[in-house]
Amino acid sequence: MAHHTRIKVRGYHLDLFGHVNNARYLEFLEEARWSLFEAQGNLDNFLKSGLALAVVNINIDYRQPALMGDELLIETGVKSIGNRSAVIHQRVLQEANGKVVAEADVTFVIFDAKQNKALALEGALKEQLEQMAAYAV
Amino acid sequence: MAHHTRIKVRGYHLDLFGHVNNARYLEFLEEARWSLFEAQGNLDNFLKSGLALAVVNINIDYRQPALMGDELLIETGVKSIGNRSAVIHQRVLQEANGKVVAEADVTFVIFDAKQNKALALEGALKEQLEQMAAYAV
Amino acid sequence: MAHHTRIKVRGYHLDLFGHVNNARYLEFLEEARWSLFEAQGNLDNFLKSGLALAVVNINIDYRQPALMGDELLIETGVKSIGNRSAVIHQRVLQEANGKVVAEADVTFVIFDAKQNKALALEGALKEQLEQMAAYAV
Amino acid sequence: MAHHTRIKVRGYHLDLFGHVNNARYLEFLEEARWSLFEAQGNLDNFLKSGLALAVVNINIDYRQPALMGDELLIETGVKSIGNRSAVIHQRVLQEANGKVVAEADVTFVIFDAKQNKALALEGALKEQLEQMAAYAV
Repeated sequence: MAHHTRIKVRGYHLDLFGHVNNARYLEFLEEARWSLFEAQGNLDNFLKSGLALAVVNINIDYRQPALMGDELLIETGVKSIGNRSAVIHQRVLQEANGKVVAEADVTFVIFDAKQNKALALEGALKEQLEQMAAYAV
Repeated sequence: MAHHTRIKVRGYHLDLFGHVNNARYLEFLEEARWSLFEAQGNLDNFLKSGLALAVVNINIDYRQPALMGDELLIETGVKSIGNRSAVIHQRVLQEANGKVVAEADVTFVIFDAKQNKALALEGALKEQLEQMAAYAV
Repeated sequence: MAHHTRIKVRGYHLDLFGHVNNARYLEFLEEARWSLFEAQGNLDNFLKSGLALAVVNINIDYRQPALMGDELLIETGVKSIGNRSAVIHQRVLQEANGKVVAEADVTFVIFDAKQNKALALEGALKEQLEQMAAYAV
Repeated sequence: MAHHTRIKVRGYHLDLFGHVNNARYLEFLEEARWSLFEAQGNLDNFLKSGLALAVVNINIDYRQPALMGDELLIETGVKSIGNRSAVIHQRVLQEANGKVVAEADVTFVIFDAKQNKALALEGALKEQLEQMAAYAV
């Protein structure tokens, strides 16, 4: 089951066309990823140890516009774990009818500020990600 | 030759890690696309006729972080034109040394608000896009 | 009693100094005002009738920085109602200890798009605002 | 004479009502303040020495809406210097006709991260601010 985050569309989310702006969706997705890391329980330790989740690619489909007052549900889950990078899949749905508004693959590495490099996804780090994979979309 | 837009990184562009935030790059790219449409000369007529460029996919690679004070150069050009959608390619470079900070393909359709549908990219509309393809990256 | 809205500080809310950015607080305050109008129950009718709440002044004190992970409570209430404008008072607090992070007076008029002018705050319109004044800070 | 910064209104600056959003103006003003500090020439030294300009109050009048494509001119200058705080005045104008769109007083202190306190505005620090006061609005 995916992790769920809810956001209601407000006036300041919209743009020229009265639709949620493209860039704003990336804030919605980031909000949902922080929320997943909290739910999974290791966010504080992670940040304290100088590790950062560095996004290296976002591939996002905008399927239909979201409008003022829409209640959006964001599903977030780990999709795949490689040797050095992993992929989170996120879907933005209209909560009322389940229609998909936007859908994205977010590829990230775990960056260690002390060593100034991306870490291999193995050992305890891989286990943590695998626990998060329970939240698949 | 690509169309050029310049943006200097300011304090409000950064996030937790002191890097330009992922979502902010999409505003930088939108800024550069509006600038291209102006340079190409048909933006006003386009908007007045009720047409909108609706983005359907953004695929963006984040290659290295941009920091406070960095002078960024955004190259924007039309990469390919299909029957119903077209692709703009955009690169964000460090102006000082040409290093690529981020790179994106932005796929869009031309949406006609009156007809409530995406238009076929043919005739005068296709010609306009072909003129913009002179700005290839 | 004031209307309450909760926001958790995330990485994308911060700026160069690791603090919530000045501009972002205005989005937090707007979020809280929409939430109050919903709670009060007349938002939909209001927007459908072509009326807009147009902000004419914001006077905001930034008292202490808010940091990553902080749980903020935003109190929102109507402070005073004049002939043509009214004032909403909003306070942003650390939920954990009640310390004030920021505090603002937001002065607005009710703008009627059809008549292209600000309305006198009288009759049914004034009554609605007076109901909202139950949510004083 | 005030320091000048120019910003063109784009689709992503707008909100529900097709106007530049309240919060976005604070980003425009921050952009203009960074630009003034650069023009005055001491920004780099300032930041390297661990000093930060911490905004403690913004009092902004929104006089008339700015719309898609508007070319805005932002005038920025130091208005007054006190013992512990100083005030920058900023005006956002329509470049075409000089009409005032928004106008703000921004009160700030100089915060020293090492000492964890706001500095007295005296000596070399005061001289720098006085030089900036040449850019009065």
